[in-house]
Amino acid sequence: MGSKLWGGRFVGDTDPIMEMFNASIAYDKRMWDADIRGSKAYVKALEKAELVTTEEMENILHGMDQIHDEWSKGVFEVKPGDEDIHTANERRLKELIGEPAGKLHTGRSRNDQVVTDMRLWLRDAISTLKRNALQLITTMVERAAVEMDVLFPGYTHMQRAQPIRWSHWLLSHAVALSRDLERLHEIRRRVNVLPLGSGAIAGTPFNIDRELLRQELAFDDISINSMDATGQRDFVAEFLFWASLCLTHLSKMAEDLMLYSTKEFSFLVLSDAYSTGSSLMPQKKNADSLELIRSKAGRVFGREDKEAMFDCYDTVHAVLQVTTGVLSTIKINRGVMEAALSPDMLATDLAYYLVRKGVPFREAHGISGKAVFLAESKSILLNQLTVEELRTASPLFSSDVSAVWDYSSSVEQYSAPGGTAKSSVAAQVEHLRTWLKKQAW
Amino acid sequence: MGSKLWGGRFVGDTDPIMEMFNASIAYDKRMWDADIRGSKAYVKALEKAELVTTEEMENILHGMDQIHDEWSKGVFEVKPGDEDIHTANERRLKELIGEPAGKLHTGRSRNDQVVTDMRLWLRDAISTLKRNALQLITTMVERAAVEMDVLFPGYTHMQRAQPIRWSHWLLSHAVALSRDLERLHEIRRRVNVLPLGSGAIAGTPFNIDRELLRQELAFDDISINSMDATGQRDFVAEFLFWASLCLTHLSKMAEDLMLYSTKEFSFLVLSDAYSTGSSLMPQKKNADSLELIRSKAGRVFGREDKEAMFDCYDTVHAVLQVTTGVLSTIKINRGVMEAALSPDMLATDLAYYLVRKGVPFREAHGISGKAVFLAESKSILLNQLTVEELRTASPLFSSDVSAVWDYSSSVEQYSAPGGTAKSSVAAQVEHLRTWLKKQAW
Amino acid sequence: MGSKLWGGRFVGDTDPIMEMFNASIAYDKRMWDADIRGSKAYVKALEKAELVTTEEMENILHGMDQIHDEWSKGVFEVKPGDEDIHTANERRLKELIGEPAGKLHTGRSRNDQVVTDMRLWLRDAISTLKRNALQLITTMVERAAVEMDVLFPGYTHMQRAQPIRWSHWLLSHAVALSRDLERLHEIRRRVNVLPLGSGAIAGTPFNIDRELLRQELAFDDISINSMDATGQRDFVAEFLFWASLCLTHLSKMAEDLMLYSTKEFSFLVLSDAYSTGSSLMPQKKNADSLELIRSKAGRVFGREDKEAMFDCYDTVHAVLQVTTGVLSTIKINRGVMEAALSPDMLATDLAYYLVRKGVPFREAHGISGKAVFLAESKSILLNQLTVEELRTASPLFSSDVSAVWDYSSSVEQYSAPGGTAKSSVAAQVEHLRTWLKKQAW
Amino acid sequence: MGSKLWGGRFVGDTDPIMEMFNASIAYDKRMWDADIRGSKAYVKALEKAELVTTEEMENILHGMDQIHDEWSKGVFEVKPGDEDIHTANERRLKELIGEPAGKLHTGRSRNDQVVTDMRLWLRDAISTLKRNALQLITTMVERAAVEMDVLFPGYTHMQRAQPIRWSHWLLSHAVALSRDLERLHEIRRRVNVLPLGSGAIAGTPFNIDRELLRQELAFDDISINSMDATGQRDFVAEFLFWASLCLTHLSKMAEDLMLYSTKEFSFLVLSDAYSTGSSLMPQKKNADSLELIRSKAGRVFGREDKEAMFDCYDTVHAVLQVTTGVLSTIKINRGVMEAALSPDMLATDLAYYLVRKGVPFREAHGISGKAVFLAESKSILLNQLTVEELRTASPLFSSDVSAVWDYSSSVEQYSAPGGTAKSSVAAQVEHLRTWLKKQAW
Repeated sequence: MGSKLWGGRFVGDTDPIMEMFNASIAYDKRMWDADIRGSKAYVKALEKAELVTTEEMENILHGMDQIHDEWSKGVFEVKPGDEDIHTANERRLKELIGEPAGKLHTGRSRNDQVVTDMRLWLRDAISTLKRNALQLITTMVERAAVEMDVLFPGYTHMQRAQPIRWSHWLLSHAVALSRDLERLHEIRRRVNVLPLGSGAIAGTPFNIDRELLRQELAFDDISINSMDATGQRDFVAEFLFWASLCLTHLSKMAEDLMLYSTKEFSFLVLSDAYSTGSSLMPQKKNADSLELIRSKAGRVFGREDKEAMFDCYDTVHAVLQVTTGVLSTIKINRGVMEAALSPDMLATDLAYYLVRKGVPFREAHGISGKAVFLAESKSILLNQLTVEELRTASPLFSSDVSAVWDYSSSVEQYSAPGGTAKSSVAAQVEHLRTWLKKQAW
Repeated sequence: MGSKLWGGRFVGDTDPIMEMFNASIAYDKRMWDADIRGSKAYVKALEKAELVTTEEMENILHGMDQIHDEWSKGVFEVKPGDEDIHTANERRLKELIGEPAGKLHTGRSRNDQVVTDMRLWLRDAISTLKRNALQLITTMVERAAVEMDVLFPGYTHMQRAQPIRWSHWLLSHAVALSRDLERLHEIRRRVNVLPLGSGAIAGTPFNIDRELLRQELAFDDISINSMDATGQRDFVAEFLFWASLCLTHLSKMAEDLMLYSTKEFSFLVLSDAYSTGSSLMPQKKNADSLELIRSKAGRVFGREDKEAMFDCYDTVHAVLQVTTGVLSTIKINRGVMEAALSPDMLATDLAYYLVRKGVPFREAHGISGKAVFLAESKSILLNQLTVEELRTASPLFSSDVSAVWDYSSSVEQYSAPGGTAKSSVAAQVEHLRTWLKKQAW
Repeated sequence: MGSKLWGGRFVGDTDPIMEMFNASIAYDKRMWDADIRGSKAYVKALEKAELVTTEEMENILHGMDQIHDEWSKGVFEVKPGDEDIHTANERRLKELIGEPAGKLHTGRSRNDQVVTDMRLWLRDAISTLKRNALQLITTMVERAAVEMDVLFPGYTHMQRAQPIRWSHWLLSHAVALSRDLERLHEIRRRVNVLPLGSGAIAGTPFNIDRELLRQELAFDDISINSMDATGQRDFVAEFLFWASLCLTHLSKMAEDLMLYSTKEFSFLVLSDAYSTGSSLMPQKKNADSLELIRSKAGRVFGREDKEAMFDCYDTVHAVLQVTTGVLSTIKINRGVMEAALSPDMLATDLAYYLVRKGVPFREAHGISGKAVFLAESKSILLNQLTVEELRTASPLFSSDVSAVWDYSSSVEQYSAPGGTAKSSVAAQVEHLRTWLKKQAW
Repeated sequence: MGSKLWGGRFVGDTDPIMEMFNASIAYDKRMWDADIRGSKAYVKALEKAELVTTEEMENILHGMDQIHDEWSKGVFEVKPGDEDIHTANERRLKELIGEPAGKLHTGRSRNDQVVTDMRLWLRDAISTLKRNALQLITTMVERAAVEMDVLFPGYTHMQRAQPIRWSHWLLSHAVALSRDLERLHEIRRRVNVLPLGSGAIAGTPFNIDRELLRQELAFDDISINSMDATGQRDFVAEFLFWASLCLTHLSKMAEDLMLYSTKEFSFLVLSDAYSTGSSLMPQKKNADSLELIRSKAGRVFGREDKEAMFDCYDTVHAVLQVTTGVLSTIKINRGVMEAALSPDMLATDLAYYLVRKGVPFREAHGISGKAVFLAESKSILLNQLTVEELRTASPLFSSDVSAVWDYSSSVEQYSAPGGTAKSSVAAQVEHLRTWLKKQAW
């Protein structure tokens, strides 16, 4: 029992299932580096408060460096009594430097220690995810810049809606991800607050200099209330929500890509590096990477807070990289994409033709609908209706209606900000390139 | 069928169950005002683009004002064909002004119309919730200022931990709510972006001035990509998450208050205005308001986006007000609270006594634990151990140990920022008062 | 305050927001009939226990019948003080018959009354859903029987996998729904247990004959423990889970149908009765019914238990009917379906050809994979490879390989139970027809 | 690449992140035994269908036994290419017996193999959980039998409601768990269905005897439709729901126990074996076991189906055992429990006193409420009101009212089935003992 941090007053033995149940070392050992950094800063505050001597501080710092070395080299040995990373590191410190190790926890509680470690770890994790996301967005923006001339059907409700640029689709997803990065930046600010010096709940009773701790650990702020500081895990909840929103964006994109890479659509060919086969059917080439990306949005991270934080990070970290890989290697079939455009997708343009001749839109919409119905009844394409046939729907149709049936012209109409015209898409590319350059946080 | 917006090409009838299933008017009529504002701005852009004449614009604006009047007075009549608020308002406009009504939807799609209405509505809702939350935080901060001298047990794991100030507990919750308001402010920025002019997915093909729309509707920004603008509901997801986090904070506070107002704790007496009785047991006075507040955190808002948005708003709106009511009327039993402090809660102080005599904390913790065990074995209180008895645990104890058993002195130790000492709690009150004054957004 | 059930000891007024917050009459009035049935049974038990006279019982029964009449005719008036259906009915009873109304609640608590009403209501709801589900399964089975000869591609991971029968697909979903009905039957047994006579928590102190109550209300069993009986809502949780599983099955089916009815697949044409159009694009015919069915699986019912129960029932009730409508009116394009079969879907058969010549399957799988690759490299179909070309992958290929390229023969191989051969699909149809006949519970 | 099951047609390399992302061996290796059993049965069917010779079958069976041996002894070596347990076992088989290993997968797909393994594994897991749950229920029932005479306050809304037996509380939780076991039994029936022989989706094309497979693997039934058999994971969803319901029951019990073991309630003392201390506060004895049990209900298992299944099993497995440990070692403070009963908890009895004198319950409830208010105003206990004082509320009170103030008599009134009277609680104990004896499935 002596190895447990709270060893004094217990006489019974702990049920081993209970002990296993309570232990978190299996996953929280990932915070070994954060835990060491936190303790190194804390011992400096102890020394300033004259709770350890300078020599004791040096010993502790040196011991901590050794422990860091052991973890780095993968030789740190977790022992049966080590219920969490904090116990493990302190147990090892005592083995290495003896008595003064027992002074390290003066005025500190596992409550403020744990949450300090979590915040340090998550701050680093956020930096990595930011880099991953920037790389993905860059891939999308540059691909959109190169393939700006490719047109294909825009879908709503999985039905062909209007001709759009392939780049417009790419950028619609890039824009969503850029908002995710803005949110991540805001979360980082709330993560980067020092809780150390809050004790269990009441605060710290010794002359611990919290400003020194803040500087040592490069936090932006100091927590305002010690109960709140040790008790709240909002920053984890925010991070989990952020991850689920980001994964939802990637999931929606993957869903479209899966559809576009079916045999029936054939717009895209996924690289072999992101496909898998079947143990039974030799011809199968499954878009497993896309299925995985799509499925991760459903993944729920509602578990113990630390475990969820790690799991969540791993998932987003992998998904962002795989998505970057998929998007940079996917091949598009421009011919098939453009062949999928069909005249009925210009039914809105047909209505607009009438609007331009003064027909109120609601009426024009009805007339165009009748033309669509007429073409369907005759089993011909909408643009194969003669002017005479069109005139049965409205006398305003004349031979100039033929100009409607041009996909490129159709797309070029949408030149207002945010639209799918080339100028507008180019502006979006520029907007995002500029935004990317500013992401220095 | 003629009254449906997409009436042209359909020949069959719609299954009435399907129709009911698809209709949203029952709840989206709450956006009647936002829908009218959106249409009034849009018709101005149509006039500028010369798609309606100035006279038609005046007619439409005037008709819209009449519809506004009908809604305000509660006399607007929803008719069977009105599947949503947008159809209803446009149907009514046509009844009022005839043909020009059909021009209002030119270049607009229900896609950009719906999301514009939602953003306008939510922007107003956020302002109301902000006011509710500020009122609650103010109540908490001022109550904390007044009752700063009341001590009571701080609990962890529902067990008595350390003596703290009652105000320290109040402020720990106020601080969490102040972070919620900061988050709400960030969300508002992302809500306040104009999607109108995005059409269905491709953008708007006419010369619609989106900057004019932005100014008319007082949005901060214009959406960057039309597909993203019409397809994404991130701002609703963010708001729902925000609500669930805020409700979680209120729920945790309500849970504590429920405990403190049990007969066994008797720290608090809930006002009759926030209590209910039992249909069977005449003596019962249930803390139903607290139960309701506590339970709302479990409420999940994972439904159709608009319905969820409204439901969520109503819930938070009510909970914030009830919580303000509860906290401003609750009576505290200062005597009971202070009587609940017990010497074992000073076991940490006993350890610190030894730390101050040079004993490493881990060892001091063990010695203090032994003292606790000794007192328990003798069935006496920790402060009833004689110095001789204490010396069996450590020879460093001497008569000055008696100074440890003072709750006020104990609390005053925690004077570092965020602690429970009077000076520190007073600083927190000032911090929040200053922060409250700055909440002008 | 007098109209509240717990009026005696309160002196303050209740906060009106709190009152609204606490009221459930808006939705629980749906249990008006169950509440009346419960009270009618209860008064008989009171009479048997001599707590009301026979005359008082007759008065109460007669009054309850009048209230029933008012609800049936839609003239029952809910008044401001009626916080729930139980208060409303009892308030009305007192208006109608005066004093004896006050005896009805003797020994009963709102706790056992509410849960009795919920169980009665849900029992009826389950019967309706059972009928809905049986109708849907019958539609699927009979359609499968009629269209048994239609072949089309079976997909895995949205990629063409193997040729199967259209009926095989239909039955795969019918089988899942038949399991749902079995689960519903099990749940009904646990719903159909009498809690009345459990009081608030301790039981009933008078000589209430619970067996009489059980018989009057046609419950199968009597609850075992009064605290459990009034406190648990497992039966609601079970029903909600059941609904979410059933909706997931319908959602998966709808997802397939959406895909099959895209322009690119064109296997199916949805009836106009289950489609909607676009307010902007005249040519659009959206599979909105399928989208709605698909989306309902995501609907979460994690709210107040009664509200969730009602909402959940309404959703499943509508979805089952709409799905039945969709499936009975959808048209299939047999020609397109069969044209979508492609030789590479027989790559498994090609491997089996070799297996039949003694090649271990793993090796045969590899050889067939090479053949697929060869055909892809030459941009020809798999069945266009000459025997010579096939021999470069394995010398065992000879002219009899041509027999492999027949979709009907391929499908007929799968004649083991559960397979897609005609005999096997016919057996599944018979199995389900027999099962349907047995659904008399 | 050759070691992958679908190695034939791929030319590119797989992205290593993608590979890791896709691999499941880290957790699905727990099914090693199920996988071996499934393959051993399958090779027998292959031999019967003459797809392997008897000698090849013997070799495969022998090889499988060796692999079993390696796993049992913990010496099986997972290699880099082993993406899942199925690949790993087959890879090893080939190393051990060479070529014939390649025949084992004939007509089988990973689709039917995986789901067969999952069903075998889960069947065993259910048996273990059943044993755990029976042990817990037995502990509760026998403890209830022994401590039947202990009275304590029954709470609703955390407020004292009515005096009940401690055993009544225990049994209320035991009854809920007994329903959980009934549900588990129903789930087991749906788990225990053979999918093997369903191939990828179409079924099996060879003469595989599915009835032989069923018998070899001791399944109760054979799946009806091959697409459904390989595609559905209802049985996992059912198991996850079951676990979350069972954990909710244990969580609610733990919540009560936490409350009862606070210093303020002091009804219970938790064994040291199920408590932990604080790293800071030497006096702390936290009810961590109860906190863990309580928290597990919040744990969401919405992840990859296999991972969720394993995680869920581990959690319930540990929680059931820890709960059994807690409940069998907890000490009750009978004196404190009975001292917590207070006269106001008999206010219902006071109303019933009047009911017995002919007062309608609603009126009696009001009178008793007035008495409570009177006592509160005078700051005395309810039973300290004189008969004269009581008469100000109703003239029907006389000296026999003193008989009301007896907790034992009060409790004994609740003798109807399910009530808290001794006879009724004893009947519940007998009911559950009989039920426990029948749990032979």
